[in-house]
Amino acid sequence: MTALLNDRLLRALAREPVDRTPVWFMRQAGRYLPEYRATRAKAGSFLGLATNPEFACEVTLQPLARYALDAAILFSDILMIPKAMGVGLSFVEGEGPQIERPVRSARDIEALPVPDPAKELRFVTDAVALIRRELAGRVPLIGFAGSPWTVATYMIEGGSSREFAQAKKLLYGDPKALHALLAKLARATTDYLNAQVEAGAQALMIFDTWGGILATPAYYEFSLAYMEHVVGSLVREHDGRPVPVILFTKGGGAWLERLSAAGADALGIDWTTELSAARRDTLGRVALQGNLDPGALFATPDSIRAEVARVLESYGRGPGHVFNLGHGIQPGVDPENVAAMVSAVHELSPAYHR
Amino acid sequence: MTALLNDRLLRALAREPVDRTPVWFMRQAGRYLPEYRATRAKAGSFLGLATNPEFACEVTLQPLARYALDAAILFSDILMIPKAMGVGLSFVEGEGPQIERPVRSARDIEALPVPDPAKELRFVTDAVALIRRELAGRVPLIGFAGSPWTVATYMIEGGSSREFAQAKKLLYGDPKALHALLAKLARATTDYLNAQVEAGAQALMIFDTWGGILATPAYYEFSLAYMEHVVGSLVREHDGRPVPVILFTKGGGAWLERLSAAGADALGIDWTTELSAARRDTLGRVALQGNLDPGALFATPDSIRAEVARVLESYGRGPGHVFNLGHGIQPGVDPENVAAMVSAVHELSPAYHR
Repeated sequence: MTALLNDRLLRALAREPVDRTPVWFMRQAGRYLPEYRATRAKAGSFLGLATNPEFACEVTLQPLARYALDAAILFSDILMIPKAMGVGLSFVEGEGPQIERPVRSARDIEALPVPDPAKELRFVTDAVALIRRELAGRVPLIGFAGSPWTVATYMIEGGSSREFAQAKKLLYGDPKALHALLAKLARATTDYLNAQVEAGAQALMIFDTWGGILATPAYYEFSLAYMEHVVGSLVREHDGRPVPVILFTKGGGAWLERLSAAGADALGIDWTTELSAARRDTLGRVALQGNLDPGALFATPDSIRAEVARVLESYGRGPGHVFNLGHGIQPGVDPENVAAMVSAVHELSPAYHR
Repeated sequence: MTALLNDRLLRALAREPVDRTPVWFMRQAGRYLPEYRATRAKAGSFLGLATNPEFACEVTLQPLARYALDAAILFSDILMIPKAMGVGLSFVEGEGPQIERPVRSARDIEALPVPDPAKELRFVTDAVALIRRELAGRVPLIGFAGSPWTVATYMIEGGSSREFAQAKKLLYGDPKALHALLAKLARATTDYLNAQVEAGAQALMIFDTWGGILATPAYYEFSLAYMEHVVGSLVREHDGRPVPVILFTKGGGAWLERLSAAGADALGIDWTTELSAARRDTLGRVALQGNLDPGALFATPDSIRAEVARVLESYGRGPGHVFNLGHGIQPGVDPENVAAMVSAVHELSPAYHR
């Protein structure tokens, strides 16, 4: 393997000293970039893009050509596991994901296969290997998956949801069936993430986008417990280097102390929680990643710089901070505003590491 | 005025002893009830329902005929103030509110009038007076309004939003203009709530549905500060009785200590925060209202009873708890499941007050 030329991300995740705060951002390969939209048009559909290693590699690298970022993140989707389980995934323009055969009973769950990543998810591991070659050691590559609970919500609802009626019905009405689904998803997620590491992913992130819609005991029982299972079963070293793991529960600000004991190296923090509070609550156990309000990118370069300054100050001095947004970048953002964010991190963060 | 026959709600909001925990729930007059849908059909449209005092009175009373609730809440909508400001409000079936002339610049904001509730919002105060007569003292009537920030998001976005791009653009890019809008909305909200009290509302609730999408300092500056203005300017006594005020920021679990010092009598707590944690954080300053997961109502009577028990136990012994959902009831809920919730509160809560 080629030497890694920029290891700021990995050092920060290990809470080792760095010269400045590393920066990347969720959905950095995405619709706000005209070059992404062009590749997406060539691919014909979102799934056409996500399942083709060459296209996935192309869009993964696009933001790195524009911005001096410290990491690449695999372009993919958290629903590749349900796709591989054969539930009939499609993406309808403007409506998000749709699942043809939702999973709502013990029988549905029993019938689901645990996919073999070397077969049904080969297009992902091929993309990882290709991206690693193309990156040639410039920055590390982050692999990812959805949390079992978050992926389960889509499988149960049959797509996106605002109310999660079916998922809540199962959670409160038939918790045993939900546990069976989550256990299966945890196994599949572990295999999938380990296959990404085997193919070249140098760090891993687990996205728990919908953990925050749960009551506290339900969060611990149905979301956190299964992320802990996954984290505990991951290969944490590859090619002689540690493979750090980042957990991110959107809306999980109240649960950070428990989350910090889940076995991950770092926690993603959404923009509604102050990094100073997160640092206090996590007791120095983990690095923190975040957390500019993605909505701040709709304003002006000057106001973005002021908000970047505020986020850096909230984390404060010393190692263990990875700059990021508090959630994925939104499609309507002007790419120039992103440049203002990245420059501000470059210019303002060294003071916190001297 | 007729004597109040059931003052459990008012006693609990004052943190005085009660025989059992009072119960009502957000959107109790709503689409989950077939009788509501029938009245809505008669009225022809949502606005036709909300702006007609007879229809509004009819649907306000419907849940009380089915369930032994301890309060009525005025049937209305948080967007009546923008309607009265003349921004062109309509409700499109299945798409929610739409505002014809969104407010996005200092000039737009300058041009907005502060409505006179006795004129432009007379249909609301008439509804309040009519409901009070029809209630004949059975239970108290709660009046309400949206928080200035929450109402502002609709006015800026032109309707519902998931990303709040325009609102965030104004917040970060032109905070002075946003402050001007919020100050105007705070004045209008104060006048509106005082007029509801004058017409007969016996308690008030302020719904900050979208405070939780803000970063902490932005929440304090743009949402909480204006709720404090409103609370500080309300008439807190009428007809020789105190008029308690309840503040509810959905997603505000991290800010409860600050919220508890805002001058309100009680805080609404959403279902993601444990009442035990909320009680600890609010330092005995306020009563607490909440917080069954609205999604729990999609399951079975037995599982609902178990969740009610859990919520009661989380608050614990002693006065100061009003049982409610953690957010509005969802349209697809079976009314029989609501009955199970109400019965469980009646049966299980006396033990916490002995």
